[in-house]
Amino acid sequence: MDDADAREQVTILRATDDAIHHLGVDVVAVSAGSVELALTVKPTMVNGHRVLHGGYLFLLADTAFAYCCASVGRASVTRTADIAFLASASIGTRITAIAEVRVAQARATICDVRIEADGVCLAEFRGQGLLTG
Amino acid sequence: MDDADAREQVTILRATDDAIHHLGVDVVAVSAGSVELALTVKPTMVNGHRVLHGGYLFLLADTAFAYCCASVGRASVTRTADIAFLASASIGTRITAIAEVRVAQARATICDVRIEADGVCLAEFRGQGLLTG
Amino acid sequence: MDDADAREQVTILRATDDAIHHLGVDVVAVSAGSVELALTVKPTMVNGHRVLHGGYLFLLADTAFAYCCASVGRASVTRTADIAFLASASIGTRITAIAEVRVAQARATICDVRIEADGVCLAEFRGQGLLTG
Amino acid sequence: MDDADAREQVTILRATDDAIHHLGVDVVAVSAGSVELALTVKPTMVNGHRVLHGGYLFLLADTAFAYCCASVGRASVTRTADIAFLASASIGTRITAIAEVRVAQARATICDVRIEADGVCLAEFRGQGLLTG
Repeated sequence: MDDADAREQVTILRATDDAIHHLGVDVVAVSAGSVELALTVKPTMVNGHRVLHGGYLFLLADTAFAYCCASVGRASVTRTADIAFLASASIGTRITAIAEVRVAQARATICDVRIEADGVCLAEFRGQGLLTG
Repeated sequence: MDDADAREQVTILRATDDAIHHLGVDVVAVSAGSVELALTVKPTMVNGHRVLHGGYLFLLADTAFAYCCASVGRASVTRTADIAFLASASIGTRITAIAEVRVAQARATICDVRIEADGVCLAEFRGQGLLTG
Repeated sequence: MDDADAREQVTILRATDDAIHHLGVDVVAVSAGSVELALTVKPTMVNGHRVLHGGYLFLLADTAFAYCCASVGRASVTRTADIAFLASASIGTRITAIAEVRVAQARATICDVRIEADGVCLAEFRGQGLLTG
Repeated sequence: MDDADAREQVTILRATDDAIHHLGVDVVAVSAGSVELALTVKPTMVNGHRVLHGGYLFLLADTAFAYCCASVGRASVTRTADIAFLASASIGTRITAIAEVRVAQARATICDVRIEADGVCLAEFRGQGLLTG
């Protein structure tokens, strides 16, 4: 797939992705094998420590993972993922998730996603998908 | 800590947890070392496949993890977590997350969380926290 | 499968497992869904800190995982695993690995393995296998 | 640290690493933030399927992780790691592990390790260390 195909695949996937529209996730950049998303932390997304709930960091990374798989034409199911939380973000912060394909071999696709804000790494995510069919 | 202390700790943590109130997460049961939460899948939570976004499965599990750590008096930071996605849930489904402490040794706390709906396991989560201070 | 079947499956798997024989891994107990292995730390197994190389903790846990899958008749491939290292072991220490099936659903099998020595948890391992065929 | 410092740190760590000497692990290349190791699969390392025991893939990756942390002057403890197994190796195969620092921020160090043989990826490993002191 070339970059135009990649963008088309992500556009298709995103069109009906209600969760992502509801949260206000923006697609910043797409190429074959790489996707960048962004999100601004809202008051409804913070936990008792007044920082972004780790679940939303995961959700953003997981979306970047899915779009990144699609950007190389490898829609995937039956997944595992792990995340390391490194720093926190407060209300109003703009965070970005940068996903890159690490492995696309046989039925497995592994993508790494880094979430950053203001040059600080907030979390590192690794997802593994399995091709359907 | 006894079960009454456990419930008090979770109540304190939950009081200011805006993300959880906003999503409608219910606390079903709390004892020292075990927490059960529940959530009904809303139309704003589904992805392009019309099933609950995996990020919300993680968010629910991660919340159960945090509350479970609190239930044994071990508030934690600097965490890692992994999740395996095993089945999906559609709009209106009631899902539950059951967290249990697996290890509480030195500064490390490991909790396992199973997410289920209608007797089917949707996801298995393992989180590791590190005691502060 | 009953416990006698479980023991037979593990015996078959173990018969040609040269790595395990070479390291001196003992099978302590087998039932359907649970396996216990043991290993004594040898001078050839320690790293520069004079403690058991983490790779051997993983190797022991991974073996217990494979045998545990076999004990419920679910030989598996295409696996992922994660491990948390919690304490170390020195030469001569007898360590045990206790594996239990956490999930066996559709094609996925998840087993958890705890490695202990003298009542201290050295590591927690979680492995996921995928049924072949 | 520059590359000469990196090589010195790895040489020091390796000098007393008996497990690594015993298995015949070679250090192929070291620079600040990157380490390459190699190992030839021996008859004592294969499991019942006659392929390299996954535990040795982990052990090699975990060693590359530790040396890679040392190559940037960040000796680490209290670690977690995950691995995805993608392909197998038979007796006599020469396998290489290539480790790179992904994050070195505050007390956390994350390194990714790819294990390959003949251009095929056998496993992907991610390790997280925590600075001591």
